[in-house]
Amino acid sequence: MPKEVTVGSPATAANMVCGFDILGFALDGPYDKLTIRLTAERGVSIRNFDSFDLPLIPEKNVIGGALLAMLDELEDGIGFEVDSTKTIKPGSGIGSSAASAAGAVVGANYLLNGRFSKSDLVRFAMNGEKVASGVRHADNLAPAIYGGVTLIRSTFPLDIVSIPAPDLYVTVLHPLIEVKTSNAREILKKEILLKDAAVQWGNIAGLVAGLMKKDYELISRSLVDVIIEPIRSILIPAFYETRACSLEAGALGGGISGSGPSVFMLSKDAETASKVELAIRREYSRTGIAFETHLSTINHEGVKIIHHS
Amino acid sequence: MPKEVTVGSPATAANMVCGFDILGFALDGPYDKLTIRLTAERGVSIRNFDSFDLPLIPEKNVIGGALLAMLDELEDGIGFEVDSTKTIKPGSGIGSSAASAAGAVVGANYLLNGRFSKSDLVRFAMNGEKVASGVRHADNLAPAIYGGVTLIRSTFPLDIVSIPAPDLYVTVLHPLIEVKTSNAREILKKEILLKDAAVQWGNIAGLVAGLMKKDYELISRSLVDVIIEPIRSILIPAFYETRACSLEAGALGGGISGSGPSVFMLSKDAETASKVELAIRREYSRTGIAFETHLSTINHEGVKIIHHS
Repeated sequence: MPKEVTVGSPATAANMVCGFDILGFALDGPYDKLTIRLTAERGVSIRNFDSFDLPLIPEKNVIGGALLAMLDELEDGIGFEVDSTKTIKPGSGIGSSAASAAGAVVGANYLLNGRFSKSDLVRFAMNGEKVASGVRHADNLAPAIYGGVTLIRSTFPLDIVSIPAPDLYVTVLHPLIEVKTSNAREILKKEILLKDAAVQWGNIAGLVAGLMKKDYELISRSLVDVIIEPIRSILIPAFYETRACSLEAGALGGGISGSGPSVFMLSKDAETASKVELAIRREYSRTGIAFETHLSTINHEGVKIIHHS
Repeated sequence: MPKEVTVGSPATAANMVCGFDILGFALDGPYDKLTIRLTAERGVSIRNFDSFDLPLIPEKNVIGGALLAMLDELEDGIGFEVDSTKTIKPGSGIGSSAASAAGAVVGANYLLNGRFSKSDLVRFAMNGEKVASGVRHADNLAPAIYGGVTLIRSTFPLDIVSIPAPDLYVTVLHPLIEVKTSNAREILKKEILLKDAAVQWGNIAGLVAGLMKKDYELISRSLVDVIIEPIRSILIPAFYETRACSLEAGALGGGISGSGPSVFMLSKDAETASKVELAIRREYSRTGIAFETHLSTINHEGVKIIHHS
């Protein structure tokens, strides 16, 4: 039985344009590395091997929050030590906290011979998200743990559905500015027009059908958000210019990743995704804002075991 | 080239619980019969062979409205005579006007060697719906013309998506009371809570995924409407009792058909659908309201050609 495991826990993009709070997908990279060891002493201890200076007290740490929730359902004589090496910047909008929480619970479950289901793991990891943002949301965790595109049909009770998807290539723009999830949530209107909601659910149904039918044109037509994006895009400089140049370069569509500031664009092939990256770099250079871009595919595996001993 | 065709045009159920204004499905029965003949004189003439006393002036008749829209895109020297025998009661909530409009345009297109696409036919037939209710909606027309379960991703521009679905058996309750579509629309709130909308789109995405995965449990869990049903159900006596007894008899779920008063319940097999019918008949007898019930499957064909000459 392995006593130590190292996992790669990927970035994820929540919302997928029209699926606010319900859809998400996993990226290949960037990803965090976590090494988890079983100990005989109840509790969680964490060491950081990066420069983000995240808290080490388990109750205030995303990894700690997730693993303490798991420990609540474990017998005595089990504890975890975690070495965390993050490359996904906190606050980037591509599921940095989810990667920490998901990696920790998947690794721990591996050391426990997989006694928990994926749904259990999401449930534990939601306590990590609560530490990060105060909200027990699962829209980044589900794709990180299940891989691919996931639907949270319901959060309470938790009901996660994997949505089969064709190959899709992702270009991510990460403007190096801060958008707090709590702010991005506060500016949303609590009430929306029924007629706008009906437009939105037409697009959500179209996106799910398009993914499952591997109909790229339908996916493209459905990547429209009339509710959240018009508000949140205010927080992201040159958002519409970025999308316009991406579509011109051949992208199927895209939008804000989670609550931003990262933006993702989907393409049908790697070559187009590269062209989109070039177009975005050219366009965003004009803003004077520092930024990074990433190229990725949709990651159908989720958190992966890198090695164990 | 045939000069006359007789079609069977089926009842349909719009909304499919959580898919307000976007989802619908076709039933096997009841269905209307329409005989359409080509004439050399521009225009539409209609004869009724039923007791509903529907207007005969083309501009005020659903069939007329649909065919006049088609004639607008046809050369001179073409006209239509229609004999209409309706069995779907107007105002029942199972797409009576859609059946008239859909049957007329599908039949006419047959006589024109299928020169128009299904999407064109829906577009023409929407002018029939406008005559009936003032609104050019397509949520009954699309399933009548395409068959099966359909998604209206967008009405303007029209974007119809067929959603592959497993075998489903349908029990319809038609309380013989009048619910005007316009009233059922007026009582809806123009604004809804974002958090309710997010619950709704989780269920819509779940329903589409459940249908395409042939996952009956997921279909069942997704047949939930937190937006429209709590309001419209007020207009349907014993709505909740009807559903409760149906679920107890084994139905997967169900709700209001269109804007009511008909109610439909979905089951996995014919035997369960019959049990559900019995349970509904027993329950509804207690209300003292006259009613009818129908058993059907989902009709994957839509309007069908019965004979031609």
